[in-house]
Amino acid sequence: MVHNMAIIGYGGMGGWHHSSIREMVPELRVKGAYDIRQEIQQKISANGLHAYQSVEELLADETVELVTIAVPNNFHKDYAIACLKAGKNVVCEKPVTLNAAELEEIIAVSKEEGKLFTVHQNRRWDRDYRVVKNILESGVIGKPYFIETRVQGSRGSMHGWRGYKENGGGMLYDWGVHLLDQLLDMIPSRVVSVSAHLESVFTEEVDDNVKLMLLFENGVSALMEFSTNCFINHPRWHVSCTEGTAVVENWECDGKIVKLAENAEQMKWEDDIVYTAAGPTRTMAPRPAHTTQVLELPKVDTKWEDYYRNIVGVLEQKEELIVKPEQALRVMKLIDMVFGAVEHGGIATCYI
Amino acid sequence: MVHNMAIIGYGGMGGWHHSSIREMVPELRVKGAYDIRQEIQQKISANGLHAYQSVEELLADETVELVTIAVPNNFHKDYAIACLKAGKNVVCEKPVTLNAAELEEIIAVSKEEGKLFTVHQNRRWDRDYRVVKNILESGVIGKPYFIETRVQGSRGSMHGWRGYKENGGGMLYDWGVHLLDQLLDMIPSRVVSVSAHLESVFTEEVDDNVKLMLLFENGVSALMEFSTNCFINHPRWHVSCTEGTAVVENWECDGKIVKLAENAEQMKWEDDIVYTAAGPTRTMAPRPAHTTQVLELPKVDTKWEDYYRNIVGVLEQKEELIVKPEQALRVMKLIDMVFGAVEHGGIATCYI
Repeated sequence: MVHNMAIIGYGGMGGWHHSSIREMVPELRVKGAYDIRQEIQQKISANGLHAYQSVEELLADETVELVTIAVPNNFHKDYAIACLKAGKNVVCEKPVTLNAAELEEIIAVSKEEGKLFTVHQNRRWDRDYRVVKNILESGVIGKPYFIETRVQGSRGSMHGWRGYKENGGGMLYDWGVHLLDQLLDMIPSRVVSVSAHLESVFTEEVDDNVKLMLLFENGVSALMEFSTNCFINHPRWHVSCTEGTAVVENWECDGKIVKLAENAEQMKWEDDIVYTAAGPTRTMAPRPAHTTQVLELPKVDTKWEDYYRNIVGVLEQKEELIVKPEQALRVMKLIDMVFGAVEHGGIATCYI
Repeated sequence: MVHNMAIIGYGGMGGWHHSSIREMVPELRVKGAYDIRQEIQQKISANGLHAYQSVEELLADETVELVTIAVPNNFHKDYAIACLKAGKNVVCEKPVTLNAAELEEIIAVSKEEGKLFTVHQNRRWDRDYRVVKNILESGVIGKPYFIETRVQGSRGSMHGWRGYKENGGGMLYDWGVHLLDQLLDMIPSRVVSVSAHLESVFTEEVDDNVKLMLLFENGVSALMEFSTNCFINHPRWHVSCTEGTAVVENWECDGKIVKLAENAEQMKWEDDIVYTAAGPTRTMAPRPAHTTQVLELPKVDTKWEDYYRNIVGVLEQKEELIVKPEQALRVMKLIDMVFGAVEHGGIATCYI
């Protein structure tokens, strides 16, 4: 069975939804799209889609079962509610709304109408994320206690509408929601506090360089960084566990795991003071290489199209929804908290 | 003029003070030392020093002008006050005391007696620290907004008395005071909040893996990490400034500065969406290499013995004290705050 869908907003991401689905999800057919910009309507037609002349026309198309919304962030809520009320199922681009209250409105309508509402948190299917999740779940290096997750660019700006406060611009809304969603999905515990540093180096209105420190109730802490001004990058992931360290360098998943050698406890070696360039130290002296072992990162199989495959499964009542609205709500509550924290010395206590 | 000094506590650090001074500071002469352990008294004699049989004997030696205290942390206060009251000038090992109140007691006695009291914050003379300070002061990459400073070992334990709470063990007292002292000396602003994660992976009684996020009033934030369980290290320093990034990899000061090329603003290049392994992105796409330039780290000249040279200068009333007691007090107040924060979700607001 093929389900008809339409797209609202045919910019960079809208076009990407179309081409990804066309190439990889045969169970879905993008029938048409609507974009407020006249010149984009021509592009929609040129790409073989029906160019709806208005949202009303799109919503009135009874053959359309699912709508994906990919417009600037401040327009998500109104479109989402209009779609749900017209009886459509809805996939909305992240960060879904500008705060938790708006998202709660959408979720309420979704429940009233009995229609699916979910957020395009496609980065749960990113390979680097899945590799880290696999390491934590397998316990190969014990329990995590510190996780660093970063995206660092150096292009020095937020593009287009992402540079404006009114539109919900800034790195926290743009990349923050992805990395927060991954982290909350990975750590089965409430967040108890956040320390937030939002910096505007280039784009006055919005945050373009962000650091967050999150402390979880189960004793894990996490550093998150979203940067547009970093010229020497850290690894994408650095994970400290009780029995070793894992690093995923980049999206291509170069990296490694280093842990104690199998019989390290029995090995004899001189645990003595070492004279380094920084003076005498025992604690910080290097450990002999033979007492450790290096493992390859686990191989994981992941495909972004599984995001939409799950949507199809839900439409056909065969699967449970993976990216749940309540999870998106938790992320939005944290983002509310982060923006609130900035007014109070950058920190906030919470139980989210 | 040569000034006689003595050492209380002739363990790892006490012995290091002796040999460093003997080799590098001819203006000082270590006359003798006292250690509570009988076997160490023999070592003191074997090293050509007078082995005082008691603290009283040491304090009664009128030829001794300066005493360096290098005993476990919980004994610092009583020895320091006894020395000052006996008319000695005092250098005390860090973290000086276990809290700010104890340090205030010492400072009060120092003022009453009109004697010098200072802390062995020798890491202000570390090359890696001086390199970073030089970069910030020269402004070669603009203003800092995020500074990461770390020491990461993997030997998995706090040695000897450093493993016990009673003795003031743990990484925050051991390495934390050094890195905090460096940071406070480098950033001319008050700390407004701290987020602290103290973990005991191996040594139940004390913190052996610590992360601190500090937010400063002038808009700078800093991540500090002191780890005994890290198998894949980060750079010693990673510094994000408005116009570039600097990395000091290690104590040997390998590393580099990367910043925009001189005429980067005028360069034409396609600032378009790039398809990476993580999907389409413009913000996180790499910047063309020709729009950046790589600089060597600045060469700096620094010698640890200048710590004691400054003490000599102060004794001879020719120099101002570099490591001031008030600075040590500020570090201790922060440490009090960090230990207090742990009880309250890991965060605390302060104006220190």
